[in-house]
Amino acid sequence: MPQTQHSATVQLACDLIARPSVTPEDEGCQALMIERLERIGFSVQRLRFGEVDNFWAVRGDSGPIVVFAGHTDVVPTGPEQHWQHPPFAPVVRDGMLLGRGAADMKGSLAAMIVACERFVAEHPNHSGRIGFLITSDEEGPAANGTVKVIEWLQERNETIDWCIVGEPSSTTVVGDVIKNGRRGSLGAELTVKGVQGHVAYPHLADNPIHAFAPALAELASTHWDSGNEFFPATSFQVSNLNSGTGATNVIPGEAHVVFNFRFSTELTDAELRTRTEAILDRHELNYDLTWKLSGQAFLTERGDLVDAVVKAVADTTGRTPELSTSGGTSDGRFIAPTGAQVIELGPINATIHKVDECISADDLDTLTTVYCASLTNLLV
Amino acid sequence: MPQTQHSATVQLACDLIARPSVTPEDEGCQALMIERLERIGFSVQRLRFGEVDNFWAVRGDSGPIVVFAGHTDVVPTGPEQHWQHPPFAPVVRDGMLLGRGAADMKGSLAAMIVACERFVAEHPNHSGRIGFLITSDEEGPAANGTVKVIEWLQERNETIDWCIVGEPSSTTVVGDVIKNGRRGSLGAELTVKGVQGHVAYPHLADNPIHAFAPALAELASTHWDSGNEFFPATSFQVSNLNSGTGATNVIPGEAHVVFNFRFSTELTDAELRTRTEAILDRHELNYDLTWKLSGQAFLTERGDLVDAVVKAVADTTGRTPELSTSGGTSDGRFIAPTGAQVIELGPINATIHKVDECISADDLDTLTTVYCASLTNLLV
Repeated sequence: MPQTQHSATVQLACDLIARPSVTPEDEGCQALMIERLERIGFSVQRLRFGEVDNFWAVRGDSGPIVVFAGHTDVVPTGPEQHWQHPPFAPVVRDGMLLGRGAADMKGSLAAMIVACERFVAEHPNHSGRIGFLITSDEEGPAANGTVKVIEWLQERNETIDWCIVGEPSSTTVVGDVIKNGRRGSLGAELTVKGVQGHVAYPHLADNPIHAFAPALAELASTHWDSGNEFFPATSFQVSNLNSGTGATNVIPGEAHVVFNFRFSTELTDAELRTRTEAILDRHELNYDLTWKLSGQAFLTERGDLVDAVVKAVADTTGRTPELSTSGGTSDGRFIAPTGAQVIELGPINATIHKVDECISADDLDTLTTVYCASLTNLLV
Repeated sequence: MPQTQHSATVQLACDLIARPSVTPEDEGCQALMIERLERIGFSVQRLRFGEVDNFWAVRGDSGPIVVFAGHTDVVPTGPEQHWQHPPFAPVVRDGMLLGRGAADMKGSLAAMIVACERFVAEHPNHSGRIGFLITSDEEGPAANGTVKVIEWLQERNETIDWCIVGEPSSTTVVGDVIKNGRRGSLGAELTVKGVQGHVAYPHLADNPIHAFAPALAELASTHWDSGNEFFPATSFQVSNLNSGTGATNVIPGEAHVVFNFRFSTELTDAELRTRTEAILDRHELNYDLTWKLSGQAFLTERGDLVDAVVKAVADTTGRTPELSTSGGTSDGRFIAPTGAQVIELGPINATIHKVDECISADDLDTLTTVYCASLTNLLV
């Protein structure tokens, strides 16, 4: 366990990492956070959905609310013997804090708490409100976590104005990248149906691979949109295509296709579905198609939140962060559709989900200062 | 074992079926045939290649040669308890001769021998020559059988003018179909190479499914030829197409494709290879391609052999046989390229390779008469 000379943020990060909260378990992380938040005047609602612990905390009575969002669950460690140090026995070595969740995202959670403690000490009567939306189901199916908390808030007509998600957004130095949106992700499973037969008697069969080929060529070459200032063009990718019995003399009866759209805010998933099905229909295919929307695209353009956080980074580090919408999905996809401004800002993401996950201890302190300055810029 | 009232052909067929010559074993079948042929003046060369017994037999000194070609090996029986009668204990029941090889093709071998015995008895000083090309490696890899005998003959500048292959060509009644050619079969295994990557970062990857799609659409819609009087148009079929890691967020690195051409005599396999590769190259694919030629197409148009055999069938049965090039491959594919006229004529093929393989005993006698009349039409 770390020694006493660690900063408040690093110490709290260690206390959180020591709780082996492999998704969807929380293992007391939220209790620890709640204790600290209640001590500085937050009202806390524990929200357990299914087997998932979540909580919603608010400080302040009225006015716009800035919410810190994050998760206490971590991904599994993989074989622990591959780690240089036990993953749930946090340690600082050569300035790096090691342990599962150090970067994704217990370091951020600790920075959020300590930033609030500092801000409240300086501004006990701040305007507006500060909130926390914390789940332990971000790394798993994400069914009983943020989605359910948002539903619970909407039932109470509670809206979020500004949201800072603690996902590790930085690439080279802390604060170099702020994610101000995410592409949407729309998946599909397609079965193209033909008629099985012998290769020697093709007139008695209907090869689904042949039938699908021109439609596939069209899907792969379609210009879906041009993207915009914040998003690259929408992309279509087939991840899996399987057809055939293994025998070389049999025309298969079906072709199974898995594909995915990553889409910009220039389009909706409904438009993509319609346009895709129009192409399949135009090629007169006989098919089954199942869609799965992983997340709508969202974008937080420059405004109160982006300006406040960019200024906080610049004042703290001297660097102007890049605004980016690249990368995978986060729980921000569930919060943005409510109308909230949402950004993601957290530490360097180089080691997330890997063995020997680690983060610079100094970066955590920098992040704490940035979060605190963001609160100041928004609420003071 | 059959009783003495059987015809000479049925009796000999029984003697052959009783020898369990599962490919590539001969089990003394050829010795029995050789004994009968030598007795009527054939000179016999036993030709053992690898573990395969073959023989070449000739009667006569000069002039055109009509060769009976066939195989003594049979396919495995499958579970013997599924047979109504032990597969290597031939029996005639209700006019049907039962046993493994009855139809494919020990019945034909017996008919050939007995036809020659009858023909030689009537025409001891026939013009031209009669030959036998017999292997025990037709049902297996076909590597040390007819192919090697043909090489051996070519080394001796021995050519075949006319060849009757005893494969079971008939569909409803004996002699209703004569095969006067076969489509060619050309297979290929294609690997289209791309660059694996994450679906969220398509600019860093190169999806081989997408790259292949337009080439596949072109291959599937290409008009390779129009066929001709005897062959349907050449057909291209993909039998297997597999790509993808199983994960839905990974762009695969390779696509694996298995395809096959069934081709007419309007084309050669070399032309198909060239045209296919030109399409792949025009689409700028990075690929590995392995070709496997299963057999060239061949055609024996109307001429001495076809006329002689058609007349023999008509005179014997009163029916005019259909000339057909449909169905799978046979050892005729190795003999035709030497310049020989090749046809296939044998009994009804409904039960070949199946449990309870059987053939009409009367049909074997009809076939004997047809073979004998064919010799008369060609050599007298």
